[in-house]
Amino acid sequence: MRVKELSSRSGVSVPTIKYYLREGLLPPGELVSKNQANYGDAHLRRLRLIRALIDIGGLTIAAVRDVLAAADAPDETVRRMLYTAQESISGQPDLPHDDAWAEADRNVAEMVERRGWQARPDSRAWQTVVAVLVSARQLEHGVWTHKLDVYAEACERIAAADLEYVGGIADVDAMLEGAVVGTVLGDALVTALRRLAHQSQSVAQLP
Amino acid sequence: MRVKELSSRSGVSVPTIKYYLREGLLPPGELVSKNQANYGDAHLRRLRLIRALIDIGGLTIAAVRDVLAAADAPDETVRRMLYTAQESISGQPDLPHDDAWAEADRNVAEMVERRGWQARPDSRAWQTVVAVLVSARQLEHGVWTHKLDVYAEACERIAAADLEYVGGIADVDAMLEGAVVGTVLGDALVTALRRLAHQSQSVAQLP
Repeated sequence: MRVKELSSRSGVSVPTIKYYLREGLLPPGELVSKNQANYGDAHLRRLRLIRALIDIGGLTIAAVRDVLAAADAPDETVRRMLYTAQESISGQPDLPHDDAWAEADRNVAEMVERRGWQARPDSRAWQTVVAVLVSARQLEHGVWTHKLDVYAEACERIAAADLEYVGGIADVDAMLEGAVVGTVLGDALVTALRRLAHQSQSVAQLP
Repeated sequence: MRVKELSSRSGVSVPTIKYYLREGLLPPGELVSKNQANYGDAHLRRLRLIRALIDIGGLTIAAVRDVLAAADAPDETVRRMLYTAQESISGQPDLPHDDAWAEADRNVAEMVERRGWQARPDSRAWQTVVAVLVSARQLEHGVWTHKLDVYAEACERIAAADLEYVGGIADVDAMLEGAVVGTVLGDALVTALRRLAHQSQSVAQLP
C-alpha cells in the first residue's frame, strides 16, 4: 500500500508517518519510484504499536525507540521484550533508600520467596511495591504488611489471564501492543473494579 | 494543646493550620484567652484526614470540604461517607455515551448481577469499568469481555481485606483517612504487584 492508505488504515497522519520514518521508528518502505514507496502489514502493525506506546503508555519518542530496539534485536527473547516494554511504561518511585526502605524491601523479598515468584529486585514494579509499603507505614496505615499475600495472590490470578491473552498473539509487534494496552488499561480496570467491590461490600457489611 | 504543638505533631505548618481554620475545614479550638485556643486529638485526626485528602488523594480545598461535610453530617451512614470519599478521589471518564458505551454498560451490569454485587451505575468506578471496556474494544484488544470475572473475583478478595481494615477503625476521621490512604496507595500496590506477577509468570511460561 502507499503512504496515503497506510495513513487511512492506521489513523496516523501522513506527516506523522514521515516523521516516524525520519526518526527510524518505522522501517522504510520498498521503493517503487524515486518518490514513492510501498508499505506492508508489518508497517501497519508497527504503527499501531508506536501509537499504543505514545497514546496509551505515555512514552516519549526516545523511550519508544528503546522498546522497538528490543523488539528488533535478533537474539531477544519474548520475555525480555515484554520486560523492556513493561519497564518503559512504569513509573520509578523516588524515595530515599534508608532503613525503612531496607525493611520493606526485605518484606517484599520474603513475599516473593514465599510465593515462588521470579522477579527482579531492580525492576520498577518491585521498587514500587517497596515504596508503597514505606509510604503506608509512614502514614501509620501499615495494613499491607499483613495483607500483602492477599493482594499478591489476587494479582497472580489476574496476571495469568493477561498472559494467556498476550502469549497467544503470534506477531511480536502485535504482542507488544497487546501488552501495553493490557497493562495500562488493565491498571484502570483493576483499580475501578476494586472500588466497585468496595461499594458492594460496604453495602453488605457497614451501617 | 496549643497551635504550635498541633503543628509539630501533625507536621502541618501554623499558617496552613490557620488557613484551614479560616476556610472552615478545621473546627475552631476552645478559646483560653483572646488570642489563644486549645486543640484536642480530634483536631489532630481531622488535620491528618485533610492532609491525606490533599497530599494522597489529590483533592482541591473545595472537594475536601465536600468530604468533611459528609463526615460531619449527623444522619450520615458510614458507607455513604466512604462512598463520598471514594467518589472524590476517583477520576470521571470522558467518553461519549454511544452504542459501544451502552453495550459495555450492559456487560458490566451483567457481571455485577452474576456476582451479586451491589454497586451504583452512576458511580465513577462503574463508569470507569465501562470506559475501559469501550477503549479496549476500540483498540481491538477486547480480552476483558471474557476475562472480566477473573478480574472481578480477584478484586473481591482484595476489597474484603481492605474493608476488614477500614471497618475496624472506630473514629470516623481516622477511618476516612485510612480509606483514602488505602484506596490511593492500594491502586499503586495492586498495579505494581500485577506487573511483578507478569514478570514472574513470563519467566515460567514464555521463551
